[in-house]
Amino acid sequence: MSRRPVIGVMGAGESASGPDIALAEQLGELIAKQGWVLLSGARPAGVMAAANRGAKRVPGSLTIGILPDESGPVADGVDVAVFTGMGNARNAINVLSSDVIVACGAGGPGTASEVALALKCGKPVVLLAAPAEAEQFFRTLGCRLFPHSAEEAVEVIRAERLVPVGA
Amino acid sequence: MSRRPVIGVMGAGESASGPDIALAEQLGELIAKQGWVLLSGARPAGVMAAANRGAKRVPGSLTIGILPDESGPVADGVDVAVFTGMGNARNAINVLSSDVIVACGAGGPGTASEVALALKCGKPVVLLAAPAEAEQFFRTLGCRLFPHSAEEAVEVIRAERLVPVGA
Amino acid sequence: MSRRPVIGVMGAGESASGPDIALAEQLGELIAKQGWVLLSGARPAGVMAAANRGAKRVPGSLTIGILPDESGPVADGVDVAVFTGMGNARNAINVLSSDVIVACGAGGPGTASEVALALKCGKPVVLLAAPAEAEQFFRTLGCRLFPHSAEEAVEVIRAERLVPVGA
Amino acid sequence: MSRRPVIGVMGAGESASGPDIALAEQLGELIAKQGWVLLSGARPAGVMAAANRGAKRVPGSLTIGILPDESGPVADGVDVAVFTGMGNARNAINVLSSDVIVACGAGGPGTASEVALALKCGKPVVLLAAPAEAEQFFRTLGCRLFPHSAEEAVEVIRAERLVPVGA
Repeated sequence: MSRRPVIGVMGAGESASGPDIALAEQLGELIAKQGWVLLSGARPAGVMAAANRGAKRVPGSLTIGILPDESGPVADGVDVAVFTGMGNARNAINVLSSDVIVACGAGGPGTASEVALALKCGKPVVLLAAPAEAEQFFRTLGCRLFPHSAEEAVEVIRAERLVPVGA
Repeated sequence: MSRRPVIGVMGAGESASGPDIALAEQLGELIAKQGWVLLSGARPAGVMAAANRGAKRVPGSLTIGILPDESGPVADGVDVAVFTGMGNARNAINVLSSDVIVACGAGGPGTASEVALALKCGKPVVLLAAPAEAEQFFRTLGCRLFPHSAEEAVEVIRAERLVPVGA
Repeated sequence: MSRRPVIGVMGAGESASGPDIALAEQLGELIAKQGWVLLSGARPAGVMAAANRGAKRVPGSLTIGILPDESGPVADGVDVAVFTGMGNARNAINVLSSDVIVACGAGGPGTASEVALALKCGKPVVLLAAPAEAEQFFRTLGCRLFPHSAEEAVEVIRAERLVPVGA
Repeated sequence: MSRRPVIGVMGAGESASGPDIALAEQLGELIAKQGWVLLSGARPAGVMAAANRGAKRVPGSLTIGILPDESGPVADGVDVAVFTGMGNARNAINVLSSDVIVACGAGGPGTASEVALALKCGKPVVLLAAPAEAEQFFRTLGCRLFPHSAEEAVEVIRAERLVPVGA
C-alpha cells in the first residue's frame, strides 16, 4: 500500500496574472491526470484556486490544501484543508509535504520563499514560466529546471524521475 | 462543492494498550463509514496506526496524517501525509484541521496537549474511554462528552451535531 | 561564556484569579533574584503580565516573551518579544526554550497544553498551587513536583538541580 | 518602559565566505553600539556566529537567537536562545520578531527565504553586499536598500527611520 506522489504547486494569489492563472489551471489538470496528488496553499485566489479547479476536472483527483489561517475560506476543489494557523511558516510545510515543488509563473515573495525553502532542504524544484530575474537568481542557488509550458513541466518531472518510478 | 467533515483521532503511540488499539481500529472504521475524513498524527504506532487501519477497510475512505517529522515512516493506510517538521507543535495543526477531536483511550501527554489545545480554541472534544483522572481534570476545563464505546462516540458526534447536518 | 538558565512561567491570562496573579508576581521576582531568565507567553494579561512585573523589580533581570501573534501588545517588563505568528503552536516553543516549566495557579487549557508538552519532551515541570484535579491528572503523566508557594517553587528547582549547578 | 529595537541579521552558515564573516562581525558590533538588540538564527556557524561575536564586544549588548532545533549547540555570545524545534519554519519567526532584516553577504537559500518572507509581510529589508543576481531579483519584489558596508547599513536604518525615532 503506497501513497500517491504529491506535487506542490505554488504561485501568486490575488496578484496573479491572467496567463499565470491559465497556466496553473492546465498544470493542475495535468497533475491530476498523472494520478498525482495536488498540494497547494489553498487560498481562494490566483494560482492556488486555478490549480485546484483544473485538478478537479479529472475524476478521482485528490487535492490537499495547507492554509495559513486557523479557519476560513478555502479554494473550491480542495478535498482536504489543513489549517495551520501559522501564517507564512506554513510554507515550510508545503515544501516538506511535496515530492516536487512547481512554482507557476511570476510568483510574489511568498512563492519565492517556498522556492528558497525547497532548495534549502533539497527538494526538486521546477520553475515554470519564471521571469528572467527569478531564473537567474535561483540558478545561483542550484535550481536548474525551467520549463515553459505545463506539459513540459510534467514531462520534466517524469523524465528526471522526481517522483517514484511507476507512480 | 463542499469538503467532507474531518474527525481527528488522537491517542497513545508506542505505549497504547491492546484495548485502546482495538477501540481505535473500530473507531476509524466507523468514522469512514459515515463518509468522514480521518485525520491522525499518522505515525506507524498505537492508536494512530489502528485508526487508519480501521478506516481503510471502508471503500472510498479518505485518511490524512499530520506528521511531526520532516520525512520518514507513515502509518499504513494514510492516503496523504503532511510533513510538518515541527515536532509537537504539529498538535496545534491537528486540532485546527479537525471539525471534532476524539481522544481514544488513555493517551499520554501528547494526547493531553491536543485535548487541551482543542478546548483552548473551542473545538468539540470527545474523550472516548478516558481514565477517571483525565475525565475529572478535563471537566474542569469545559469538556463534557465522555462516551465509552466507538459506536457511542460516533453517535455523540451526530447527536450533538458536531459536524455539518447532512454531512 | 554560558547562557543563564531560563525558567518558563505559564498560567492563565484574562481569567487569572487575584491570588494567582499575586503568586506570579512573587515568583517572577524570585526567579530574577536567582539570576535566571524569565520566559513567558508575554501577553499583557494575568499570570504572564504579573510574572514580568515581578521580575523587573530586580536590577539586571532579563525577561523574554514568546507571543502567539504576528505583532501587537506585549506585557510591560518584557525585554525581548519574539513574535511567532503561530497561535497556540508557540506553546511548544515556550517549552523547548525553558530549562524548567512552572505552571502558576489554576491555569486554563493553554497552560494545560504547555504542562502536557513539557512532560512529553521530558522537561522538568513544577505545578505551583495547582488545583487538585490538575495535580491528580498530571501525576498520572509523570509529574511529581507540586509546591504551594513561590519560595517553595524556587527551592524545588534548586534542590532538584533542575538548572545547572552554580547557575 | 519600551523595548529596544531588534535587528535581525541573516546570512550563510557553514558556507559563508571570509569577507561575509568579517562583514557580519562588524555589523553585529555596530548594531550593539546603537543599543539595538541583535537577533539571529544563532547556530554556531558563519554569519550568525560572527554577528554575535561582534555584538558581544560591546558592553550592555543584548543578543537573541532563534534556533531551528529542539536543543543543541548555540553560537557563543547569544544571551537568550529560543529553541523552536521547527526547522526552517523558524525563519518566519526571525522575520516577525525583527524590526528590520539585514541579509549579510551572499546568503544561501535559507537567507533568501527570510528576505522573501520579510518582503511578504512588509518588514524593512536591507541587502548588505548582495550578489548582483540577488539584488536584481529582490528588486522585482520591492526591495530597494542595498548598502555595501556595515556602516552604510546602519546609516540606512537610521536615515530611513526603520526603527523608532530616538531609539
